[in-house]
Amino acid sequence: MNDLDRTGAADAPWRGLDHKPGCALPAEFYTSAAVYARDLETILFRSWIYAGHVSQLPAVGSYFLVELGSESFIVVRSADDTIRAFANVCRHRGSRVCLESSGQVRAFVCPYHAWAYDLDGRLRSRRAMPEGFDPAGYGLKTVRCEIFQGLVFISLNADVPDLAISLEPVAPAYAIYDLENARVAHQDTYTVDANWKLTIENFMECYHCAPAHVEYARCHTLKSPKDNDALRPAMLKAASELGYETGGYDNSMPQDGSVAYYYQRNALYDPNVTGSQDGRPVAPLLGSIPDFGGGVADVQIGPVSYGIFYPDHAVLYRFQPRDVQKTDMDIVWLVHKDAEEGRDYDRASLTWMWEVTTEADKTIILNNQRGVNSRYYEPGPLSEMEEFTTRFIDWYLSEID
Amino acid sequence: MNDLDRTGAADAPWRGLDHKPGCALPAEFYTSAAVYARDLETILFRSWIYAGHVSQLPAVGSYFLVELGSESFIVVRSADDTIRAFANVCRHRGSRVCLESSGQVRAFVCPYHAWAYDLDGRLRSRRAMPEGFDPAGYGLKTVRCEIFQGLVFISLNADVPDLAISLEPVAPAYAIYDLENARVAHQDTYTVDANWKLTIENFMECYHCAPAHVEYARCHTLKSPKDNDALRPAMLKAASELGYETGGYDNSMPQDGSVAYYYQRNALYDPNVTGSQDGRPVAPLLGSIPDFGGGVADVQIGPVSYGIFYPDHAVLYRFQPRDVQKTDMDIVWLVHKDAEEGRDYDRASLTWMWEVTTEADKTIILNNQRGVNSRYYEPGPLSEMEEFTTRFIDWYLSEID
Amino acid sequence: MNDLDRTGAADAPWRGLDHKPGCALPAEFYTSAAVYARDLETILFRSWIYAGHVSQLPAVGSYFLVELGSESFIVVRSADDTIRAFANVCRHRGSRVCLESSGQVRAFVCPYHAWAYDLDGRLRSRRAMPEGFDPAGYGLKTVRCEIFQGLVFISLNADVPDLAISLEPVAPAYAIYDLENARVAHQDTYTVDANWKLTIENFMECYHCAPAHVEYARCHTLKSPKDNDALRPAMLKAASELGYETGGYDNSMPQDGSVAYYYQRNALYDPNVTGSQDGRPVAPLLGSIPDFGGGVADVQIGPVSYGIFYPDHAVLYRFQPRDVQKTDMDIVWLVHKDAEEGRDYDRASLTWMWEVTTEADKTIILNNQRGVNSRYYEPGPLSEMEEFTTRFIDWYLSEID
Repeated sequence: MNDLDRTGAADAPWRGLDHKPGCALPAEFYTSAAVYARDLETILFRSWIYAGHVSQLPAVGSYFLVELGSESFIVVRSADDTIRAFANVCRHRGSRVCLESSGQVRAFVCPYHAWAYDLDGRLRSRRAMPEGFDPAGYGLKTVRCEIFQGLVFISLNADVPDLAISLEPVAPAYAIYDLENARVAHQDTYTVDANWKLTIENFMECYHCAPAHVEYARCHTLKSPKDNDALRPAMLKAASELGYETGGYDNSMPQDGSVAYYYQRNALYDPNVTGSQDGRPVAPLLGSIPDFGGGVADVQIGPVSYGIFYPDHAVLYRFQPRDVQKTDMDIVWLVHKDAEEGRDYDRASLTWMWEVTTEADKTIILNNQRGVNSRYYEPGPLSEMEEFTTRFIDWYLSEID
Repeated sequence: MNDLDRTGAADAPWRGLDHKPGCALPAEFYTSAAVYARDLETILFRSWIYAGHVSQLPAVGSYFLVELGSESFIVVRSADDTIRAFANVCRHRGSRVCLESSGQVRAFVCPYHAWAYDLDGRLRSRRAMPEGFDPAGYGLKTVRCEIFQGLVFISLNADVPDLAISLEPVAPAYAIYDLENARVAHQDTYTVDANWKLTIENFMECYHCAPAHVEYARCHTLKSPKDNDALRPAMLKAASELGYETGGYDNSMPQDGSVAYYYQRNALYDPNVTGSQDGRPVAPLLGSIPDFGGGVADVQIGPVSYGIFYPDHAVLYRFQPRDVQKTDMDIVWLVHKDAEEGRDYDRASLTWMWEVTTEADKTIILNNQRGVNSRYYEPGPLSEMEEFTTRFIDWYLSEID
Repeated sequence: MNDLDRTGAADAPWRGLDHKPGCALPAEFYTSAAVYARDLETILFRSWIYAGHVSQLPAVGSYFLVELGSESFIVVRSADDTIRAFANVCRHRGSRVCLESSGQVRAFVCPYHAWAYDLDGRLRSRRAMPEGFDPAGYGLKTVRCEIFQGLVFISLNADVPDLAISLEPVAPAYAIYDLENARVAHQDTYTVDANWKLTIENFMECYHCAPAHVEYARCHTLKSPKDNDALRPAMLKAASELGYETGGYDNSMPQDGSVAYYYQRNALYDPNVTGSQDGRPVAPLLGSIPDFGGGVADVQIGPVSYGIFYPDHAVLYRFQPRDVQKTDMDIVWLVHKDAEEGRDYDRASLTWMWEVTTEADKTIILNNQRGVNSRYYEPGPLSEMEEFTTRFIDWYLSEID
């Protein structure tokens, strides 16, 4: 094999694909196993991925599992109160160590042969090993784990820049929500038989909101650039008075390896004050927010995590590739840590908006993939309302190469 | 890679397979993904494929979907009363445009971003596209669509000869059934985990009828060449008096790219007059047929469509490849357009014969595929009663190369 | 292609895998389709595989099917009382000939076209074949079939040494159980989504018994080398007095192509006399065993068949590869042929121990495979209690090459 071959399309099929700027991606990006394997390496396993929330780790020994692709990780509060993450793979013969998706333990005991690991991952007991076996070399393998305002992120990439440093500029904008003192009220996973990029391309544009999401469109001005422009000045004024950061932060296409982020406030239609069926509050105010009003924040942290922050609850998405044409859309609903179900909020009311919207998206995305799989698919031009999808595609192409 | 390699077995594995004339095909024809991909191109996507019946398109805007392989097509009655067929793929980002399998619409509106297409496929409305976007270039992609005596066919091949011209010789033989004035009384799909060629090889011989289809064999003389020969002269005389075309038409192996067809009358055992549980009529006579008697017509149109035309109903088969070892057997039962369910026919009685026969074939074909997948499979010699299967294999081999 | 290529890792990926002696196997052995295909050829299809028991073939024409990988075989008692095995593939067009998993027939009649085969496999009737067709060339294909003390084995390998000759040394040890006069009381299949080698590696060590199988561990001293050593002398003395062979036989790693075997007696904890929930008898004594006591025999015959022989019943395992990560664990429970369900034994009590143990193993093995599939899996060192697993790995590596 010569050098030309080595760098050619055979090894890197995405290089031979003729993408037309401003258009959707060629079909192979959504259908090729080789492209998918590359996506995992260059996007999912290189960046910071939202893993969970500190409220899920209330005490020493509290842990939860995170599945990424076919990998499983343990995130745990260790004895020194540090939150750590480990590959959920026993160092003996490779069994998964934790089977339950969350819980509280004093040590991690492998269910196969009972090798036991401390909460900091060190092998602390095993039986009948030969002379000369040194347990120091057999601790659970670690992955990076950092916390941003209560949100726990992990990365398989030892060289990724620190999460906190990357997010420093945008930190003040999130501060008012005080997510560190929030709590997971509900989580759900929607699995769609489509490539992960189609799920993000869908999430990143509101061109489809008016035709496909009447529930969302009744409430959020993002569905109409004209309305958004018209209603924003008054909203920003109100937001500013309530203490919100009203400037936008946009680092959604980082070229230097730092973690992507985005923050922008958008108006809700009167008289909606949150994302709910009737537009009325569904939970107590988050953090130090003094009152309703001030619109909603649309945010991004990292390449596959997005959020919608209302005054009374926050919705976090993680788009997680599971196979070439299979993606989990994991959603978490956060409320104030003192909010009590039944007394302060009703779970069905809290989750209604993004359950109905995600159900609709699941159908949309599936039918998008089906059409992309056709020999008659030809990537068409994107509208002005799909600017962020275009930007995602451009960023993706720069990363994948 | 030299020219020899290019044309060698690596690129065209079917060339390296050693087929013994008069025998079943080597296993790879039923198991290889490369052969299957070739089959789609050279057979399914090159020929005319039965799509539906004009009775399913009663008014302007009436449409139905056809799935072929992983493709989806829309067949619609346009505003000018022409029946047209389109790839069911939006020209924007590729979503399927129609999701319901049939219906009536004023325009095709993509459920994703509401791009709207006229019934003739032209893009007529879309929002927020950049300056200079020319909708003329973004109509739904068309495939060929022609009608033969009320039967709608589509072809993905722009160069296939006209259906009507190809079928001109056989048209008079079908005329007595007046299928244009028939109606779909029932349709059903039987999915079998086997290669599509095994389903056609099964359909094309009656060597298995006596052992495997007692219901069919009680009624149809095709199960016994001796009986068929003995009873045919009297049947043909009666058929001639009733106005049937009694000569056979056989163009089932066209070498010039024209559409295959076949027509032959076969006797039913006395006192059966149609293909039903008790041999008695199950619906009003079709077309201009004056009375019962005159046997049954066994027909073929195109490479994957076959029919059995009784005096009171017609049964149409489409064998549709879905994967290397997955095939849909789509069946349609046609009755006179004025026949009313409950009054003129009972659906269960109408469909009994070919439901029970197809259920049996589904089991047979599945077990055939299972055996073919064995390392002990060796293609055996075909009997005299499998002449048409042998012909199908020979034709297939000439087309595939 | 030069010689280097021929012997290189591309053709034989297992050669490029860096196995560390004394450790678990590299992941590719449990994940690679190429390794799996090789495993079938060099292990499953080269050796003797347990197929069933003579009690399942009580009369001439009695047969049962055996599925191996994607192959199906018929094992039948022929007219001359010989037990024979055939590929379950019709010589005509390849259909499976027998569809029911067991039964009694006078001949094998293919359900497709009614080709009929004698019980010795000869084609004896078929219809409408062309002149010159010689049925002598179209009998069912045979595979080897031999019987050892009532246990029927088949082999796809015409050159494998005779089963009986290979097993001659160990035959006296099994004789006391008189399995020829036993009877299948129950059989069950546990399918686990894991590579077959993980199922055998699991079965061959009792390092996991104490942590993972409390039911087994309460009864069997194998779970503790210390207890096993301590209790064995008294047990062997008692066993000897009862007439058991007390020496061990160990040919579990044959290098000459002969069939592997193993036999060793191990103690049960007092007061257990058999492998049951309360340790008390669950069936009448087998063969010529005079009384309870004398521990339990752990045995192996062939590469994928293992057994646990208690005084009152025997449990036989067959670990059968179905796909790279799919294995059937087939279990058979044997009792004395005169034992009658309801009167002499209760099926639920008889099967309890190995049902509960196998259910637990199914979970264990699945989670082992999941961890092995991780990029963080690194084969760890095996303990002293996993000696037989280490030996299996070493033997496997010597065979696969």
